[in-house]
Amino acid sequence: MKHFFISLVLVAGLSASLCNAQTTPAAVKEDFKPSVFNQPGKEYPMVNSQGYARFRIEAPDAQAVSVSLGLDGRGGTKLVKGEDGVWAGTTEGPLDEGFHYYHLTIDGGVFNDPGALNFYGSTRWESGIEIPAHDQDFYALKDVPHGFVQQILFPSPSTSTSRRAFVYTPPDYGKDRNKRYPVLYLQHGWGEDETAWSNQGHANLIMDNLIAEGRIEPFIIVMTYGMTNEVRMGGLRNFDMSPFQTVLVDELIPYVDANFATLADRQNRATAGLSMGGMQTKTITLNKPEVFSHFGLLSGGTYSPDDLKDKKDVKLVFMSCGSKENPDGVNNAAKALKEAGYNAVSFVSEGTAHEFLTWRRSLYQLAPLLFKK
Amino acid sequence: MKHFFISLVLVAGLSASLCNAQTTPAAVKEDFKPSVFNQPGKEYPMVNSQGYARFRIEAPDAQAVSVSLGLDGRGGTKLVKGEDGVWAGTTEGPLDEGFHYYHLTIDGGVFNDPGALNFYGSTRWESGIEIPAHDQDFYALKDVPHGFVQQILFPSPSTSTSRRAFVYTPPDYGKDRNKRYPVLYLQHGWGEDETAWSNQGHANLIMDNLIAEGRIEPFIIVMTYGMTNEVRMGGLRNFDMSPFQTVLVDELIPYVDANFATLADRQNRATAGLSMGGMQTKTITLNKPEVFSHFGLLSGGTYSPDDLKDKKDVKLVFMSCGSKENPDGVNNAAKALKEAGYNAVSFVSEGTAHEFLTWRRSLYQLAPLLFKK
Repeated sequence: MKHFFISLVLVAGLSASLCNAQTTPAAVKEDFKPSVFNQPGKEYPMVNSQGYARFRIEAPDAQAVSVSLGLDGRGGTKLVKGEDGVWAGTTEGPLDEGFHYYHLTIDGGVFNDPGALNFYGSTRWESGIEIPAHDQDFYALKDVPHGFVQQILFPSPSTSTSRRAFVYTPPDYGKDRNKRYPVLYLQHGWGEDETAWSNQGHANLIMDNLIAEGRIEPFIIVMTYGMTNEVRMGGLRNFDMSPFQTVLVDELIPYVDANFATLADRQNRATAGLSMGGMQTKTITLNKPEVFSHFGLLSGGTYSPDDLKDKKDVKLVFMSCGSKENPDGVNNAAKALKEAGYNAVSFVSEGTAHEFLTWRRSLYQLAPLLFKK
Repeated sequence: MKHFFISLVLVAGLSASLCNAQTTPAAVKEDFKPSVFNQPGKEYPMVNSQGYARFRIEAPDAQAVSVSLGLDGRGGTKLVKGEDGVWAGTTEGPLDEGFHYYHLTIDGGVFNDPGALNFYGSTRWESGIEIPAHDQDFYALKDVPHGFVQQILFPSPSTSTSRRAFVYTPPDYGKDRNKRYPVLYLQHGWGEDETAWSNQGHANLIMDNLIAEGRIEPFIIVMTYGMTNEVRMGGLRNFDMSPFQTVLVDELIPYVDANFATLADRQNRATAGLSMGGMQTKTITLNKPEVFSHFGLLSGGTYSPDDLKDKKDVKLVFMSCGSKENPDGVNNAAKALKEAGYNAVSFVSEGTAHEFLTWRRSLYQLAPLLFKK
């Protein structure tokens, strides 16, 4: 278990700088546009149609400025000061499609890019950049009915505070006063928090679009902070999942069932998580088989038939990862589970690693499989 | 009008660096604690019981690091590099109680403090620091029932997109299916956005606490982005309020009335705004007297009896500012309105300037005055 966590962290750390290695320099197309995750009105960082990223940082008296994105293992992208005193540079190769965390190193200190929005990852608010994906339509903001994302503060006696969660309610929620909805509890990864699935994950837009297309029956999604025992920085060896299990099962779920129009039973309750959140999903679903009926591990390990041998009434096991992770792992695990009689599905996100496009696509694949009659 | 806007911006720019001038250096108490608005696990910036702020920035090879907070007109606080290579420094005097935006200047470039959370102000996500106020209890997170803050995306044909708003619903919302609520439309200031009232304003906690104390009848608050025509950077000369009026009156209000349990009439609809949002409030309430019955200007100008002469059925005019702004302005305006027969109230926030503690206190004073039978 310890090793599992630590390797997840390492993969997460590296993935931001992964890209397609190029042995011969390709011609860089000069069709750069501002990243969609830039701060309002900011031109840089920019991205071109090939996936190259270009940065521009004002710090006229700095000695050295670099960006943590770039070719894997080669220290990111060093910027060069121009005659105008502005530091600029382009990644040596294209980046993977989708979302990447990054930061600047300026004279030995770590700072965010003033041009980019910030996203909580690596236990801090980091700069983010989006390389447009060829399939980005499924999480685009469209002119369809939109659900709400609600910030709730729920009482948590076990941690002596009010804790925050976000609750996605579908567009028709509340319209029919007698309608009740299934619920997916959806967790972030190590170093992220309860904002991740809405901000960088676009979970609400993925749901809005699936519902508008009639591809799923609407359900609620609940997202809360999973690193309950506050081991945020380097303390993963001591990470203990039981405080989070208490918050989730004994505090959050009863609060959601009391305050939202839920179908408050096991059949209508799913849980999934990415990376460390997948590990939590596995542990908690096995500890508490009476709570959830649909399980999802997104770049977060696998279940074996042995894990589930006393849990024959599991409705769905979904396991996914990026093609640059360990696709054989999730495919073989699903095969073994199917052979043992479970409804198991694996999904591999083509061309992505341990990063959010993998997880956006995973949610898009998982949602239509949930809560089937 | 042009001058009014520009002066608001200047005041907003200066206010972050205002503090009590000290002619003789006071002894600085060594009881510094992390600011409550630090990123998780970060020790710096710190604040002491006198209101001094202390900063610590790692950038070992930098030539110069300064913080924009400090004594007014003296260029903020210059940090000094210690033997450990870390830049550190303390403000020369205490800062005003409450919330302040700030940023770092590193070798001539503007960056955020990696230790602090970011807040949208000055048309960018800036670092924020909180000097504990002696009356902070009214916006503290307490063990009381909490309302939700919902992110909604509402269709806006006039701007050809889905626009974002946040909706505060009180703790008992939805419990009694026949209960309907009045609504306050609450606007941010120049350079801020629809996140300001929840993040740095604590509007939801102020409401939760007032409701828990039985001091107000619950109502809904709606907050959206007011700089609709996207004049974010320096273009205030061309700022035109009519696009926002269209979004607010013709698009947002009908959407909220269709999707929330509102009392959808003028008597039960209020609007207030801070700074530029106050100017918008004044303009729109005078243009559209049929829409709102309660008006609030928070550091955002005043109404005169002449402004309201054809609007005798106004239920409340609330005008406020900090004692370091122009308290005579709001007090005299309220006096003139009262003499003309209006229900007018002024409020002056002691010891604060054009900044968020003024506006938190203003909301706390305004809320109990709204929607009286």
